[in-house]
Amino acid sequence: MAMLSEKLRKIYESSGADALFLACDFLRRYLTDFYSTDGYVLVTPEECIFVADLRYFEAAEKKLSGSCVKVVQGGCGNALELAKPYHTLGVPYPFTSVSALRLYEQDGHETLDCMPAFRAAMLVKEEWELSRIEKACEIAEDAFDLLLPDLKEGMRESEVAALLEYNMRRLGASGVSFDTICAFGENGSVPHYETAARKLRFGDPVLIDFGCKYEGYCSDITRTFLFGDDGRHEEFKKLHATVLMAHELVKERLCSGMTGAEADAIARGYLRSKGLSENFTHSLGHGVGLQIHEAPVLSPRSRDVLTDGMVFSDEPGVYLAGRLGIRIEDTVCLKGGKVVSFMKKTSRRALIL
Amino acid sequence: MAMLSEKLRKIYESSGADALFLACDFLRRYLTDFYSTDGYVLVTPEECIFVADLRYFEAAEKKLSGSCVKVVQGGCGNALELAKPYHTLGVPYPFTSVSALRLYEQDGHETLDCMPAFRAAMLVKEEWELSRIEKACEIAEDAFDLLLPDLKEGMRESEVAALLEYNMRRLGASGVSFDTICAFGENGSVPHYETAARKLRFGDPVLIDFGCKYEGYCSDITRTFLFGDDGRHEEFKKLHATVLMAHELVKERLCSGMTGAEADAIARGYLRSKGLSENFTHSLGHGVGLQIHEAPVLSPRSRDVLTDGMVFSDEPGVYLAGRLGIRIEDTVCLKGGKVVSFMKKTSRRALIL
Repeated sequence: MAMLSEKLRKIYESSGADALFLACDFLRRYLTDFYSTDGYVLVTPEECIFVADLRYFEAAEKKLSGSCVKVVQGGCGNALELAKPYHTLGVPYPFTSVSALRLYEQDGHETLDCMPAFRAAMLVKEEWELSRIEKACEIAEDAFDLLLPDLKEGMRESEVAALLEYNMRRLGASGVSFDTICAFGENGSVPHYETAARKLRFGDPVLIDFGCKYEGYCSDITRTFLFGDDGRHEEFKKLHATVLMAHELVKERLCSGMTGAEADAIARGYLRSKGLSENFTHSLGHGVGLQIHEAPVLSPRSRDVLTDGMVFSDEPGVYLAGRLGIRIEDTVCLKGGKVVSFMKKTSRRALIL
Repeated sequence: MAMLSEKLRKIYESSGADALFLACDFLRRYLTDFYSTDGYVLVTPEECIFVADLRYFEAAEKKLSGSCVKVVQGGCGNALELAKPYHTLGVPYPFTSVSALRLYEQDGHETLDCMPAFRAAMLVKEEWELSRIEKACEIAEDAFDLLLPDLKEGMRESEVAALLEYNMRRLGASGVSFDTICAFGENGSVPHYETAARKLRFGDPVLIDFGCKYEGYCSDITRTFLFGDDGRHEEFKKLHATVLMAHELVKERLCSGMTGAEADAIARGYLRSKGLSENFTHSLGHGVGLQIHEAPVLSPRSRDVLTDGMVFSDEPGVYLAGRLGIRIEDTVCLKGGKVVSFMKKTSRRALIL
């Protein structure tokens, strides 16, 4: 992990803190590439120390020997003891509880938010990060392809979601990257629908938004299709083709140097030309990495500049309240100035049975 | 939900705040019995207001009409606006981020921690809460019984965990209550082992610690058994019988009015009499409810007084480092002064094939 040390120095310096004190799992993982449910990472001007308890100490020491991370055995008290010489601690405010803050303050520390420094560093992915996201996307696609032949009339949304999640686990995912959204029929018209008990019927539109984690990194994908064609779906097919075109236009036209707003405008402008801008009720996309939602933001007001190595979702959608919803989403990255999709296998077609 | 209003008044009064401001999902659920991933609950001396966004507003209004919860449509800004007249806001410090705290402070609020007031109220469960925990336990047991005939040599720990989780989802759970621990052979000797890729072999001890959520409430159960008997397991069988005896003694002897320390001593004392106190490396149990770990604590130093209506785990364990681990756990409650287990179906026997 020596490759992290330069990056870490940059994060440390731009944070403005005397030391960084990290108790949150994905930042701990980002700095050590070691997964643990508990533990503390202290970053001082001289070194990066991972304080791991009995459960993790041995494995962490083995994995990180020869890296620039020093592993020390202990708990919260030991970590705080090591932090004592440093007055201002950088902690990630969105992921630090007030209870934890009070603990730091009791020790006489001042704190500042180091999350902006992390956010900036995490925005551009390294090769090893990209290859994990790629694997998380591959597992999600394979799990979806495994699911399709098992879809049967009468299955409930929650059952389909459970089966898809099981497939991802079987294929090597450590878990889901977010609660699977599985919406049959009119339920698809709610963008963040909560998977429930509606039963699948022949001719139903099906919207599934899902993803998994592989070695900490997330995937995110949405497919919308007809479960059989009962001949009453001209509107669905037309809208599906329109959303797919918006999705593909983004892949074609988005290039490095654009802002999140300019990227969003590619899909939104096309949907507006079809009279559907009112029906595209969310942003085009969000960054994907160790978190399922991170920087950059691709929305009408985003000033984030998109550059090579960034990973984000391309997910235009059109919703007709109470009737129908269509969303098509890939996780993609910017490479050589252009969009490259991680999704290579699953069909984006409108009809599947 | 009129039954909550008296409870809520008590929480409000004992918090000492001018109003309670809750942005955390399980407390929102506790007060409204409505599930949402986002939203805010404001409790003033006069009323309990649930601020729900577009996604949830309609469903929340429908469900809560006639209750003592008033539903208002909006986001964080609207909720903060409603909170403006109240100087000191009670917020749950362990579940409030520093970013959120800064937001409240910007509006001129002082804050205090209302979690102690909630903790006290949530300690004793009402009938409707007990019946949900019972259902979560029933699903976990049924899923385990479904799993057993599917266990095959060569399956990986992660595969077995995935299948068990799938069974729970199929049977109506909304998800797991924590990441399933599935440990084969010597891996069982790590109390919080992380499920990995070890393959199942004939004669392996298997330790599975798992649970699910049903309408917000958790279950927690551990079973340890031999996957077939290769004739070399006298030590396992003897230790299993000892742990089972410790587990059953707790059910027999624990009664309302004891402290968490006295409860813990029932199992610990018995294991000490067998020369195993050093091998029981964790607490006897923890409260179970909307959270998988909550009050009361059953440990050598706990002064929590156990009373009727409390729900907690009874989980003694014995671990021989690098070789073997045995833990037997039920979720139980106190009723009429005595322990009643929610687990009624699954075997606690040592041998299963």
